[in-house]
Amino acid sequence: MVSIDLNCDMGEGFGVYSLGSDDLVMPYITSANIACGFHASDPSTMLKTVKLAARHGVAIGAHPSYPDLVGFGRRAMDATLDEISADVTYQIGALSAFCHREGVRLHHVKAHGALYNKAAESHPVAAAIAQAIKMAGDELVMVCLSNSEMVSAAQEAGIPYVEEVFADRAYTRDGKLVPRSRAGAVLHDPALVAQRVLEMVTRKSVATIDGAAIPLTAETICVHGDTPESFEMIKAIRCKLEANNVMLKAFGR
Amino acid sequence: MVSIDLNCDMGEGFGVYSLGSDDLVMPYITSANIACGFHASDPSTMLKTVKLAARHGVAIGAHPSYPDLVGFGRRAMDATLDEISADVTYQIGALSAFCHREGVRLHHVKAHGALYNKAAESHPVAAAIAQAIKMAGDELVMVCLSNSEMVSAAQEAGIPYVEEVFADRAYTRDGKLVPRSRAGAVLHDPALVAQRVLEMVTRKSVATIDGAAIPLTAETICVHGDTPESFEMIKAIRCKLEANNVMLKAFGR
Amino acid sequence: MVSIDLNCDMGEGFGVYSLGSDDLVMPYITSANIACGFHASDPSTMLKTVKLAARHGVAIGAHPSYPDLVGFGRRAMDATLDEISADVTYQIGALSAFCHREGVRLHHVKAHGALYNKAAESHPVAAAIAQAIKMAGDELVMVCLSNSEMVSAAQEAGIPYVEEVFADRAYTRDGKLVPRSRAGAVLHDPALVAQRVLEMVTRKSVATIDGAAIPLTAETICVHGDTPESFEMIKAIRCKLEANNVMLKAFGR
Amino acid sequence: MVSIDLNCDMGEGFGVYSLGSDDLVMPYITSANIACGFHASDPSTMLKTVKLAARHGVAIGAHPSYPDLVGFGRRAMDATLDEISADVTYQIGALSAFCHREGVRLHHVKAHGALYNKAAESHPVAAAIAQAIKMAGDELVMVCLSNSEMVSAAQEAGIPYVEEVFADRAYTRDGKLVPRSRAGAVLHDPALVAQRVLEMVTRKSVATIDGAAIPLTAETICVHGDTPESFEMIKAIRCKLEANNVMLKAFGR
Repeated sequence: MVSIDLNCDMGEGFGVYSLGSDDLVMPYITSANIACGFHASDPSTMLKTVKLAARHGVAIGAHPSYPDLVGFGRRAMDATLDEISADVTYQIGALSAFCHREGVRLHHVKAHGALYNKAAESHPVAAAIAQAIKMAGDELVMVCLSNSEMVSAAQEAGIPYVEEVFADRAYTRDGKLVPRSRAGAVLHDPALVAQRVLEMVTRKSVATIDGAAIPLTAETICVHGDTPESFEMIKAIRCKLEANNVMLKAFGR
Repeated sequence: MVSIDLNCDMGEGFGVYSLGSDDLVMPYITSANIACGFHASDPSTMLKTVKLAARHGVAIGAHPSYPDLVGFGRRAMDATLDEISADVTYQIGALSAFCHREGVRLHHVKAHGALYNKAAESHPVAAAIAQAIKMAGDELVMVCLSNSEMVSAAQEAGIPYVEEVFADRAYTRDGKLVPRSRAGAVLHDPALVAQRVLEMVTRKSVATIDGAAIPLTAETICVHGDTPESFEMIKAIRCKLEANNVMLKAFGR
Repeated sequence: MVSIDLNCDMGEGFGVYSLGSDDLVMPYITSANIACGFHASDPSTMLKTVKLAARHGVAIGAHPSYPDLVGFGRRAMDATLDEISADVTYQIGALSAFCHREGVRLHHVKAHGALYNKAAESHPVAAAIAQAIKMAGDELVMVCLSNSEMVSAAQEAGIPYVEEVFADRAYTRDGKLVPRSRAGAVLHDPALVAQRVLEMVTRKSVATIDGAAIPLTAETICVHGDTPESFEMIKAIRCKLEANNVMLKAFGR
Repeated sequence: MVSIDLNCDMGEGFGVYSLGSDDLVMPYITSANIACGFHASDPSTMLKTVKLAARHGVAIGAHPSYPDLVGFGRRAMDATLDEISADVTYQIGALSAFCHREGVRLHHVKAHGALYNKAAESHPVAAAIAQAIKMAGDELVMVCLSNSEMVSAAQEAGIPYVEEVFADRAYTRDGKLVPRSRAGAVLHDPALVAQRVLEMVTRKSVATIDGAAIPLTAETICVHGDTPESFEMIKAIRCKLEANNVMLKAFGR
């Protein structure tokens, strides 16, 4: 039986501010990437989010970022590789302590926002992250954008990794994400998206923006839960997969 | 043979800023309380400081604080017990990851500044810290101000703890620190301080500010290293203790 | 014709986070207390909020706080008077620059959250704020909790001030706010609240929690707009006042 | 009589941390670029630094930065033009309030670190800064790297500006700074540097790194004061200029 993981960013509130609908989304996903205080979140929010994920049996990942609360980690920064490495270690450790406190294991690490995008195209940045994950021990899995520098960096570091695809994004012929600035880069129809995800998982291929079919490794599907529309999409994806006998479970479990 | 621990706050720089002389002081102490980013420090500074402590075989402790970088954690804040607990877990985790990365164990936890002072007199705050330490596991030792609420909080939590005394502070008849605002509260003569420390360690007593002698449990001595004068004091204390056959080593080792 | 001011906290989002419904509320109020980056907001949010207030002809006030983003400025801090004074100057200046940029005047200053509460009961803190306002020049008006230390501090500093009452709070016999922890401290019925506000404004008196009637100076009414319920209350108050020929306008205009 | 301005970054401490020797350097310079809390400083430090500059009759400039305390504003960030514009307005306003409080005028604006470097090569970033300065009013002078995009941006905005040269940096044939990564990019000999500065000021030319002489507009000289060596250099420059009848005074005064 084929299985797949649905991952979603969680715990991205900050202090009095909330973002997204974690309570609503958590039951539908299998992996949660939890913010660690650098682009969002704070210790109290992290504790609450780890408890919520644990209650639903959702695998917990650290979601480290550049230090940029006001920019939500969406702005690339010229941080050195040593700074990135230390920042990732710090954030993994902080989240790990909440996992330990709640009696669950930290399962994976997925870089956030601008750091994720930078690691996708910069091998040295991807390698710095991979090394920090390796040094954290515990067989943490690195979530890598499919067909990106992250994959080779994880391989070189000799750490477990999975390739990630995006449910609602168009792909180019070489298996890259179509930049958001291009028309058609983001898909909005839940039924269409659910069908594409099913094909990614069962046929290991995807239709590109220009109509070709290319092979694609999809070990985890990134979904979003911060708007009512995105929540509808999660439900459509989950429903479609279950109707086609795809098992939903966290990678490596 | 009697033994004692000398602990000192370390790694209290921030970004481009440095504070104190960690390189100079580290060889003379046996325990380092390392800042975790809330009152001072940042991931790169934490990594550097953990490496330095590891190189000298100094036991590493987390030094958690209220979140107040601009005030260096010296300003009491009306944080809730849940906030304090989560903040302590976060900081322990972050430092712990650097210890793991460098192949050393996290050894103890000592609250910083205003949080330390608050915990000394507020049982609920001391208990919140003790519980956070307990939930971090790893048999972390809580450093408690001697004769304070911290001691009973650690006992109730059932976690290992040590009682701390201050090398350069005067004591009242009931074993409390004389408030800094009072004349004579802080001692400046290295020879006198070294002699007092020797008595605390070997006779388990101290002369109070009004001339009495009271019993005092001293399992670790807090020293400072941020000025040339304080560094002279560390050397005088160490020299005096070694000359009197007191072994210098971290508690619990 | 009697006139009164309705003031409301505005611009309390931060980065990607929003809070309240500024667009909805702004047309109904006459004064906006705009966050300055210490408990909420950031430069881009401040610019947007000043533009919105200017478009609606709403008088703009600075809303300075203790530096505590994660706690939304709701936690008292042991800041020194000099720190409070410098923090207030900084925040007034920052907001003032956005006013100047948009061609409007900064009109008043109202302390936020824990700083407001501290100033209400601590004369030295109220005086530090009053002096910072005085040194900012421009005849800025200090918003003072009625019957609090702020009033005498403003008088001593010789600066313009107004006395503020709360639409939805119960009062004690000596004209103080009933602490939120007591039952009945916060009123929830829009019709009742609107009637109370009308009496505060036209009769200069209020019914206390124990049924007495006491005199009360009400030069500005604090309303809240962050929930649908609070927005309903604003509309009920405004409607009631207009139906009784009370003119709604910012104080001092 | 020829005159020139010596400008230096000042007030770059943060909380308990100090950086440089402002007390020592202030008497030797004519313009101070004062940090505004985004890469360094805090309200209390800003107040102290404005007082010091005012006491010495030194012209005060705002020194705005990307929001990056931990990186000291030295890391380029992908901030939008709107974000940069709002950030600059905020920082100008904050410093301006301290100037007003101390009875002195804000005189100029000089971007810091990575923001300065970005503005030197990116016309849109330079234009965003120039517009923010223009909207701050008060005839604030923009300090522009000589031969950079800042100059044309200031001209287009129609605001007063000066061209800045660096005392201790080598120049290329097209009047640009030799990148710090190249050998010989930074000059260390105070006597040589002083002689170069004299030629920049009196002959309006400079010897390039490859031995040519090129014309250079030098209306303000950037000096550093954070090390004993750099302080020696300031004194050598000042001594050389005074010995050659060059008047030291802030531009535009």
